[in-house]
Amino acid sequence: MILLLITEGLTMNFNQEKIIANDKFAALYSKLVLGIEKECVRITAEGKLSQTAHSDKFGNRSYHPYIQTDFAENQIELITPPCDSTAEVMDFLAAIHDVYYRTSQEYLWPASMPPEFEDSEIAIAALDDVDDVKYREHLAKKYGKNKQILSGVHYNFEFSPELLTFLYEENDNVTLSFKDFRNEVYLKLARQYTRFHYILTFLFGGTPFAVKGFLNPAEKLNRPVRSVRNSSFGYVEQLKKSISLMSLDDYISDLSSCILSGELINEKEYYGAVRLRGSNELKTLKTVGVRYLELRTLDLNPFEPFGISKETLDFIHYFLLFLLFKSETSDYQIGTKMNREIAFEHPNEPTVFEDEAKEVLYEMKRFYKPLKANGLLALIDHYIRKFENPQNTIASRLLERDLLKISRKNFEKSFKRPFQLAGFTQMELSTQNILFDAIQKGLKIEILDENDQFIRLSFKQHEELIKNGNMTSRDNYIASLAMENKLVTKKLLHEAGIAVPAGFEFQNIEQALAIYPLIKNQAIVIKPKSTNYGLGISIFKQGIDYEDYKTALNFAFKEDSEVLIEEFVAGTEYRFYVLDKQVRAILLRVPANVVGDGVHTVEELVAMKNDSIYRGENHRFPLEKIQLGGLEQLMLKEQGLKLESVPERDKIVYLRENSNISTGGDSVDVTDEIDKSYHQIAENVAKMLGAVVTGVDIIIENKALPATNDNYKVIEANQNPMMQMHIFPYQGTGRRVTKMMLDYLFPEC
Amino acid sequence: MILLLITEGLTMNFNQEKIIANDKFAALYSKLVLGIEKECVRITAEGKLSQTAHSDKFGNRSYHPYIQTDFAENQIELITPPCDSTAEVMDFLAAIHDVYYRTSQEYLWPASMPPEFEDSEIAIAALDDVDDVKYREHLAKKYGKNKQILSGVHYNFEFSPELLTFLYEENDNVTLSFKDFRNEVYLKLARQYTRFHYILTFLFGGTPFAVKGFLNPAEKLNRPVRSVRNSSFGYVEQLKKSISLMSLDDYISDLSSCILSGELINEKEYYGAVRLRGSNELKTLKTVGVRYLELRTLDLNPFEPFGISKETLDFIHYFLLFLLFKSETSDYQIGTKMNREIAFEHPNEPTVFEDEAKEVLYEMKRFYKPLKANGLLALIDHYIRKFENPQNTIASRLLERDLLKISRKNFEKSFKRPFQLAGFTQMELSTQNILFDAIQKGLKIEILDENDQFIRLSFKQHEELIKNGNMTSRDNYIASLAMENKLVTKKLLHEAGIAVPAGFEFQNIEQALAIYPLIKNQAIVIKPKSTNYGLGISIFKQGIDYEDYKTALNFAFKEDSEVLIEEFVAGTEYRFYVLDKQVRAILLRVPANVVGDGVHTVEELVAMKNDSIYRGENHRFPLEKIQLGGLEQLMLKEQGLKLESVPERDKIVYLRENSNISTGGDSVDVTDEIDKSYHQIAENVAKMLGAVVTGVDIIIENKALPATNDNYKVIEANQNPMMQMHIFPYQGTGRRVTKMMLDYLFPEC
Repeated sequence: MILLLITEGLTMNFNQEKIIANDKFAALYSKLVLGIEKECVRITAEGKLSQTAHSDKFGNRSYHPYIQTDFAENQIELITPPCDSTAEVMDFLAAIHDVYYRTSQEYLWPASMPPEFEDSEIAIAALDDVDDVKYREHLAKKYGKNKQILSGVHYNFEFSPELLTFLYEENDNVTLSFKDFRNEVYLKLARQYTRFHYILTFLFGGTPFAVKGFLNPAEKLNRPVRSVRNSSFGYVEQLKKSISLMSLDDYISDLSSCILSGELINEKEYYGAVRLRGSNELKTLKTVGVRYLELRTLDLNPFEPFGISKETLDFIHYFLLFLLFKSETSDYQIGTKMNREIAFEHPNEPTVFEDEAKEVLYEMKRFYKPLKANGLLALIDHYIRKFENPQNTIASRLLERDLLKISRKNFEKSFKRPFQLAGFTQMELSTQNILFDAIQKGLKIEILDENDQFIRLSFKQHEELIKNGNMTSRDNYIASLAMENKLVTKKLLHEAGIAVPAGFEFQNIEQALAIYPLIKNQAIVIKPKSTNYGLGISIFKQGIDYEDYKTALNFAFKEDSEVLIEEFVAGTEYRFYVLDKQVRAILLRVPANVVGDGVHTVEELVAMKNDSIYRGENHRFPLEKIQLGGLEQLMLKEQGLKLESVPERDKIVYLRENSNISTGGDSVDVTDEIDKSYHQIAENVAKMLGAVVTGVDIIIENKALPATNDNYKVIEANQNPMMQMHIFPYQGTGRRVTKMMLDYLFPEC
Repeated sequence: MILLLITEGLTMNFNQEKIIANDKFAALYSKLVLGIEKECVRITAEGKLSQTAHSDKFGNRSYHPYIQTDFAENQIELITPPCDSTAEVMDFLAAIHDVYYRTSQEYLWPASMPPEFEDSEIAIAALDDVDDVKYREHLAKKYGKNKQILSGVHYNFEFSPELLTFLYEENDNVTLSFKDFRNEVYLKLARQYTRFHYILTFLFGGTPFAVKGFLNPAEKLNRPVRSVRNSSFGYVEQLKKSISLMSLDDYISDLSSCILSGELINEKEYYGAVRLRGSNELKTLKTVGVRYLELRTLDLNPFEPFGISKETLDFIHYFLLFLLFKSETSDYQIGTKMNREIAFEHPNEPTVFEDEAKEVLYEMKRFYKPLKANGLLALIDHYIRKFENPQNTIASRLLERDLLKISRKNFEKSFKRPFQLAGFTQMELSTQNILFDAIQKGLKIEILDENDQFIRLSFKQHEELIKNGNMTSRDNYIASLAMENKLVTKKLLHEAGIAVPAGFEFQNIEQALAIYPLIKNQAIVIKPKSTNYGLGISIFKQGIDYEDYKTALNFAFKEDSEVLIEEFVAGTEYRFYVLDKQVRAILLRVPANVVGDGVHTVEELVAMKNDSIYRGENHRFPLEKIQLGGLEQLMLKEQGLKLESVPERDKIVYLRENSNISTGGDSVDVTDEIDKSYHQIAENVAKMLGAVVTGVDIIIENKALPATNDNYKVIEANQNPMMQMHIFPYQGTGRRVTKMMLDYLFPEC
C-alpha cells in the first residue's frame, strides 16, 4: 500500500519504506522509456563551423526521424526513438552517429559551446516548411543567432507502463483516474526536477567558457564557470512570471497567457528546465494528459563519443525515480535560481549547495539500499565524491582539453569497422547494413526479433517487414519454397529452356547402381540431395569404375536419404544476386585458402589471414574466419600437407573443397566482367521462378564468350542469398545491395 | 553398334544380340512414355445405359484433360496424361476412376460391349463445339449409333527419349537425322504391330458376344467369339485400299486421298489398328514427325477395375520393344486379316495361328533372356500358356460372368476409403484431396516432388504451384515468416488491437527468476519458445510458489534456449481456418482420448479406437492413431491409471495433454456454432498478418457470448494449417477446404 496524500497544492507523497520493500518494485524499478535528442554543430577538419548544406543523402529532411537540422543549417539534432532501456538508447545513439559520420564525412563538435565563430557563419536551417524557417528567424531576432547555436541534450523521460500501473494499483485514492494519477506523478516529478536539477548541472555542466562570438556585447565572462548554457548568459527561460507546475491547468493557462501576450511566439519557445509532454499542441495536452517529461538542462559531455554516457543516463533515471518518492517542499521554483547560481560557479571550486546536494544524494542512496543493487549504490557514491572533488567534474576537466582532437577521434572511430553498424553488432551483417541504409534514408527502424533478424522499416504510413535483409513481402511464398526444393527448381528452369545439369535422383543405392551403364563414361557429380558444405560429394571428371561408384554412393547416402547424380559441369561458378528483375552484383567465390610465403606454416598463414578485421564468425563480418577442423585437415592431407608444413612462396593452399564464404572462402566481385548475356540468364531464372530476390549460381565455361545453351549451367537459385559478401568483397568493388533493396521497397523516398 | 540396314522398303533391321548385350540397354529397356484412353459406358444400378447428362461437376467439359465424353452422352472417355511408367499409368487410372465414381455416383460398365440397349438409349454427346457434334452425327449416319457405342482402350506408346537417343547414337547411318530415324523406328513398329497384333487380340479380346441392339439386321452371330470388336462386325477399318505404313509420305498421301475422295470425313475417322501420332493435323505431321503410336485394338478387360491390368500394359510394352528388333517380313498387311480371323474364333478353341504366335513369343523370350529379368520371362511364359489353354483367355472367362456385379463392386471399392485418392495414397491427405478436387474440376495435375507434396495445377495457360495443399503464390514470403515467429506474430497482432496473451520472453533462467514478483499471483503458462506437443510446458492456474517456478523454468529451458512466460487464458481453444479473407471452417480439437465401457482395458480401448479406417499415420489419414509411448503412459500415470486399467463406463480417459490431431486427438467441426464476432477476429488476424491462408488458434471463454476484448485471446496463427482435419472431422460436418482453395486459385473454372 502506498500512502498517497493529496493536499492543497496537489502534493503527492509516497511512503518510501513501503515502496522499496515491495518485491514488485524491485522487479520493475530499472525499467523506463527513454528518448534522447542530442544537438551539436558540424565542423570542418580545422575546427571551424561547417559551411556545407545538410547532406541530401539523408533523404527527406523534413521527415527524417533520427537526423534533423536544429536551429542552424550546420547544427544537427540526433534523435533516438523511445527506448526500453538506457543500453538501448546508447546503442541507438551509436548507430545514428555511425550513419551520420560515414554519410556526411564531417566532424561533429563534441561540446555544447561551439568553436569560435562569427555570426555570419551561422545560417538559419534551410527547411522546406516556411513556418519552420519563420520561427527560426524570430528566434534569431529575439535571442540572437549566437545564442541559438548553443547545443545540448534533451532527456525525454517516461515511466515504464508496468511501473506506473504498479504505482497506480498500490494507490489508496480510488477516486483518482489513471490519467489524473499519471498527470500528478509527472507534475510532482517536474517540480522536484526544477528544485534539484542544479545537482545535475554541477555534475554534468560542460560549458565552462564562452567562445568568441557567443557573448553579446553587454555580457562579460572573465573566468571559467560550470555551465554557461545553464547560466543567465545561456539559453534559459526569461519570462516575466514563471510557468506554474502545480497543476496541469495552471501550466497550460500560464503558457497560454504568455503566447497570448506575445511573450512567447508558441509553446516551443518555452525554454524551462522541464516541459510537460504528451501532445504536440498545448490545446490538446489537457485531453491527452502528460505522458512524459522533457528535461532540457543537460550540456553535452565532450568526453563521451555520443555526448552523454550510459552511467549518466542511468544516474538521472534513478535520480528522477527517487525524486518521485522524496517529499516535496513548497519552494520548488527556487531551484531555477539555484541552478543559475551553481552554473556560474568556478568549476574547480566546491559549490555553495554542497551540503544540500550531498544530503539529497545520501537520501537517495539510503532509499535504494534495500534493493542490494551494488552498481547503483556505487554510482551514487561516485557522484557524491565529485562534490568533494569538483576538479573531477566535466566542466573542470574541460579547462584544458583539445576538443578538435576529440572530434577527430570520434569521427575516426566510426570508420574502424566500416562494415558494422554500432549498437546493432549482435545482428547479422546484412541486417546491420540494411539498418544503416534505412537510418541514412530516413526510414523508421524497429527490431521485431533480434535473434531472428526480423525488422520493420517504415516511411510515413508505408511499412515493410524484412527478415535477413532479403526476405520481404514482395516475394511470394511458393517461389521461396520452389527455390528451397532443388528438384522443383531444376524442373521449372529446364521447362523454361534454361540450361541445368542433367541428372537423376535416387532413394536407394540399388536404383542408383542400376543406372551405372548410363553414367560410367560420363563426367558426373554424386551428392546428397541436401548439400552441407561439400560433405558426401564425389566428383568424377573422366568416367567412373563400378566399385568407385558404389563407394561414392555409400558416401553420399550417409549424408541424406536421397542422392542426386548430376552431370559434372566444367567451368567456374558465379553467384548472381538478382533483385527486382535485375542482376545487381556478381561474385566469384574462392574456397578457403592461404598463399605460401616460404616462411610461415599453414597454421600461421591461416592465423595471419584470420587476423583481418574483415573476418569473424557467424555472419557478423564480411568474411568468415578459416577454420582448421577435420575437413580442412583432410583437405591438407590430400595435398600432402600438414598444419606445420611451410608452403613455398606464392603457392595457393586450399583448406576447403567448397567455395562457400561461410566456410572461410574469399569473395571477388566480378559484376562488370561478366558478359550481359549471363545477366539475362540470371534475370530469366528469377522471372521463371517468380522470385524478386534470388542468388543464382551459374557455372560458366568461359566468361569471355557470351552465353549459349551449351556453355553454362544454372546450378541453383537461393531464396535467401547472402548479401554482405557483395557489399564487402575480399577483392573488387562492393555493391551496396542493401541500399538497392531499400530503393526497391521504398521508391517514394 | 547397331546394324542398321535401310533397304528398298525402308526396312529397319537391328542386331538383336548386340542390342541385348549392351548394358545401357539393360538400364533403359524398362523406360517408356505411355498414355491410356479408356472408353466405357455409364449405366444405371439395373444395368441399363444411363440416361443422365454428363455431370456438370466435371467443370468445363470441352477442356477437361482426364474425363471427357466420347461418341455418346453416356459414354465417357478416361484419359491419363503421358506417364513415365506403367505403374504411374495405373495410379492415374485409379485416381480418375475414384474421382469419376465419387462425383457422378454412377456405375461404369466394365466391358467393351455395352449391356443390352435400344438405339434410342444412345444420344450423341451434347458437346459445346458444333463441329464435334456434326462429326458424331456423321459417324452415326455412316456406321450406326449401335456400332459407335462399342468401347475400347487406346494404348499411346512412345519410346523413352533416353532409349531413343541410345538407339540413335548406336546407329551406323550417320546421314539419317534424329527425326528421320525416329520416323523410321515408329513406322517399323506400326508395321510390326499391324502384322502381329492378332496375338494381343487372342490374349486380351474381351467381346465374346454381341448384345441385343448391337448387330445390324444383316449381321448374324450364333456363337461366342474372341472379340466382336476386332471382327468384321466390329468397328474396324473398311477402306477400299489400305493405308500404307511403308513411309511417312505414303501414310500421309494415302490418308489424304481418302479424305479428298470423301471416303473419310477427316483423319480422326481412320480406324486402323495403329495410328502414327505427332500432330493433331495430318498436314503438319510431316514437319513434326512421328512422336508416338496410338494402338487401337484393345478391348476392355472386364476383370480389371480400370479396364486393363499393369501386367497387360507391361506385356504390350515389351512386346512392342521386341517387335522393333525383330526382322520384318514384307507382308505386314496380312496381319489385319489375321486379326479379324482370330477375333472371330470361338474363345474356347485353340487358334489357327497358335504355332506362329508361340514362335514369336518364344523368340521374344529368347531375346530378353540375357537381361535376367525373371518377372518379364515369367510374364511371357504366362501368355504363351494361354495359347495352349484358350479357356484361360479373357474372352473365354467372360462366357459366364455377371458384369453388373463387377460394375457394382468396382463402384463400391471407390467408397471404401472416401478420404483417399487412389493412386496417390503415398502423398499427404491434404494433397490427395486437392488433387481429387483438381481432377474433378478439370485442372491438369502434375506432381513436381512427391516427397515434398509439391504439385502444379493448371487450367489452360494459368498455372499454380502448391505445396502441402496450402502454400501458394497468393501468400507472401514475409507473412509466412512472421507467422513462423510467434514473437513477431504477437507483436503485430497486439499493435493491431487484437487480444493476445500478455507475456515475457527469456534467454536465461536468471532473467526469468527476476520477474518472479510480477507473476507470483498470476495464472501463467511457462513454455519453451518452440513448443513440441506440450513438452516442457507448465501451467499454474492459481499463483505459483518460488521453488515450483524454478523447477518449471528448468523444465522449459531443457527444451529450448528461449522460454516464454505467458498469461494463462481460461477457455477452450478453437482452430479457425481462414482462406481469402473468410473463415471457412472452425474446429474444436480434443486431446487423444478413449471412453471407458467398464469392460475393456485402456490398451484395448485404444486399439479399438485405432481400428477405424479413418485413423492412420503420418498425415495419410484424417486422424492419427493414438500412440502409447512415454508421454501417453505418463499422462495415464498422472490419472492413476495403467494400460491394464479398466475405466468405468462413459469415463473419458485422456492420453495426451495437447490437443493436436497429429498426436491422436479428435476433431469436432463447430463452424456453425461459433458466433460471427469470432469469425471476424480470425479474419482480422489474417488481414493484419497479410496472410491469405492461416490457421488461427483462439481461446474463447464462452462461445455463447460474442467477442469482446476480454473474453478471447489469439494464441497463434499457423502458416501451414492442416486441412484434412476440417474435411473429415471426427464429429460434425466436413468442410471441403481443398475445393475452396481451388475455387479461390482458379476462379475462371
